Amino acid sequence: MAICYQSPFKPITTLSLPRTHQTRKTRPCGVVVVVRCSKTQLLSTEPEPVFTSVRSFAPATVANLGPGFDFLGCAVDGLGDHVSARVDPSVHPGEVSISEISGDNAKKLSKNPLWNCAGIAAIEVMRRLGVRSVGLSLSLEKGLPLGSGLGSSAASAAAAAIAVNEIFGARLSTEELVLAGLKSEEKVSGYHADNVGPAIMGGFVLIRSYQPLELVSLKFPAEKELFFVLASPDFEAPTKKMRAALPTEIGMPHHVWNSSQAGALVAAVLQGDVEGLGRALSSDKIVEPRRAPLIPGMAAVKRAAIEGGAFGCTISGAGPTAVAITDDEARGRAIGERMVEAFMVEGKLRAEAVVRRLDRVGARLVSSIPR
Amino acid sequence: MAICYQSPFKPITTLSLPRTHQTRKTRPCGVVVVVRCSKTQLLSTEPEPVFTSVRSFAPATVANLGPGFDFLGCAVDGLGDHVSARVDPSVHPGEVSISEISGDNAKKLSKNPLWNCAGIAAIEVMRRLGVRSVGLSLSLEKGLPLGSGLGSSAASAAAAAIAVNEIFGARLSTEELVLAGLKSEEKVSGYHADNVGPAIMGGFVLIRSYQPLELVSLKFPAEKELFFVLASPDFEAPTKKMRAALPTEIGMPHHVWNSSQAGALVAAVLQGDVEGLGRALSSDKIVEPRRAPLIPGMAAVKRAAIEGGAFGCTISGAGPTAVAITDDEARGRAIGERMVEAFMVEGKLRAEAVVRRLDRVGARLVSSIPR
Repeated sequence: MAICYQSPFKPITTLSLPRTHQTRKTRPCGVVVVVRCSKTQLLSTEPEPVFTSVRSFAPATVANLGPGFDFLGCAVDGLGDHVSARVDPSVHPGEVSISEISGDNAKKLSKNPLWNCAGIAAIEVMRRLGVRSVGLSLSLEKGLPLGSGLGSSAASAAAAAIAVNEIFGARLSTEELVLAGLKSEEKVSGYHADNVGPAIMGGFVLIRSYQPLELVSLKFPAEKELFFVLASPDFEAPTKKMRAALPTEIGMPHHVWNSSQAGALVAAVLQGDVEGLGRALSSDKIVEPRRAPLIPGMAAVKRAAIEGGAFGCTISGAGPTAVAITDDEARGRAIGERMVEAFMVEGKLRAEAVVRRLDRVGARLVSSIPR
Repeated sequence: MAICYQSPFKPITTLSLPRTHQTRKTRPCGVVVVVRCSKTQLLSTEPEPVFTSVRSFAPATVANLGPGFDFLGCAVDGLGDHVSARVDPSVHPGEVSISEISGDNAKKLSKNPLWNCAGIAAIEVMRRLGVRSVGLSLSLEKGLPLGSGLGSSAASAAAAAIAVNEIFGARLSTEELVLAGLKSEEKVSGYHADNVGPAIMGGFVLIRSYQPLELVSLKFPAEKELFFVLASPDFEAPTKKMRAALPTEIGMPHHVWNSSQAGALVAAVLQGDVEGLGRALSSDKIVEPRRAPLIPGMAAVKRAAIEGGAFGCTISGAGPTAVAITDDEARGRAIGERMVEAFMVEGKLRAEAVVRRLDRVGARLVSSIPR
């Protein structure tokens, strides 16, 4: 698959050493990492590819997390999208083409890079890197269903952003990669970073501000176990419709309640208090009460999860997936069975449930072929 | 001062050992302590006094902390109220009398224990302990000005609650002491625990719920420095008027913004990120914009604090005190001078500023005379 590539323009190398994949991945070692974004700065010198091809992975993400609506999200392990990127002399220099999309919903996605999450993010990374002399060909392997509330578009964007960045020596910072992902999210589902942030950074991420972009990585303690039970029904919950269901005005008591639960949620994450995390995630009085009735059976699914021993349950993203929290994998499977049953009995919907750990790494290089 | 007291009724001792003062104080060793309150349970056996007199202290507190409105507060060191309590045979058994109130505003406070913060809390602790055979006499030393936004009523209630509990062997739990303090707060300034919680527990306290009462202690790292610059103007900001200024409905964007800042504030506390803490505290878009205009000069004071190097500034509690954040004591003094000047120039108000550390201990026994 690897294609040997000779750069037509010899780039002038910069003095700063390119960040390696390893360096970036080992960075979030503190409890809280605050990432502040400087103004967009294009690299003054064009980078040369260090790989002829790479394959990357970006995980599924659960955004909102109840009272964390629109500013909190986390990544889940073992579910996500892959992107392969290769230097392709047949692609116009400085541009990106999408050669293949595989997976169950491949046909629903455009191969036009300007209309594809992975393509938009890849183009933005190329632009930020200042790549003008090399064309890339992308192959997208969709592991995530579309419109499920698991950050499908963000996973594609994150995997593509990482893949392109890695090909050119991983020169962009984490925040620039998130900004590239945001460019994609903006086009397909709105300018929000609560999926693409954790898809790139892993773990829990709090979006503190957009102007400038500022992300706070909330480190869940390494020694603690955290499992997400994700029950996805066969139902479409369009983000637009789910957003239209939101209240425009919120009474002060509900504002204070949800804010305090958001604070409790952040505390529970940093402390590794899975029970507290579940209860906080389950406590939303503003968004979930409006959205749950639009997903058949959701109220019963939540009850079933709690009765099954989950510490909490809410809607993942804009739905329709329901997410429950536990610290025990076997119990998670039993909870998942109850949730699937409740979707069927109360919502008349077929559903599937999986139990997944927190993804603490985020988007990553899976394999690479050096030049 | 000590009066020798012989209990007229020999109490039956319980099997459980009474908690000592030391045990209670060393308890909050984890990053987050979740205190859940069981239903009110009166002790089945009447406790015997272990001291003839005690003297306690409870610190000033800063409630709200910007986006933490109505659910977050913290204690500040070196400012507060003292309460002396002694076994007094001249007081009707099971009752409390207030023998003395000292301090600048002593004359404004009632000596009727049913109408005094310290008295109400003391009576509630007596009731919870089941004390029927011993009368107590209280002496209150007000170190805090009234209505300043520094939790004056909570400090009196907390000091009294601790004093009475200690006299009888410190049998009540932290949450029961907070509930006793809440009884007092309810009567004088509303049923809110964001002052009395930290006044009793020290440090930062998040009020997660009231039914049941659930408090989350947020541990600011021991190795980090945190200073509060408290600038108190000669101005009355009645809590009732400040509460009437609040909006009843909040737009979704402001709700999301303030919630995210509340989350960022909690993260900054647990991580010891003083800069992040200051910025989050300074970011309120809901309450401060309504209340600041009611305190002459407040906007200028905030600007002056930030220009002076503070990481953030907001209204302490319902005001009129302004609170700024720094990690350097000397800089704190300079910031305080600027704040005082701004109150004078822009608000035509005389003000005083002090620089205080975070109080990490909360209400405590200062001295005691054993029986």
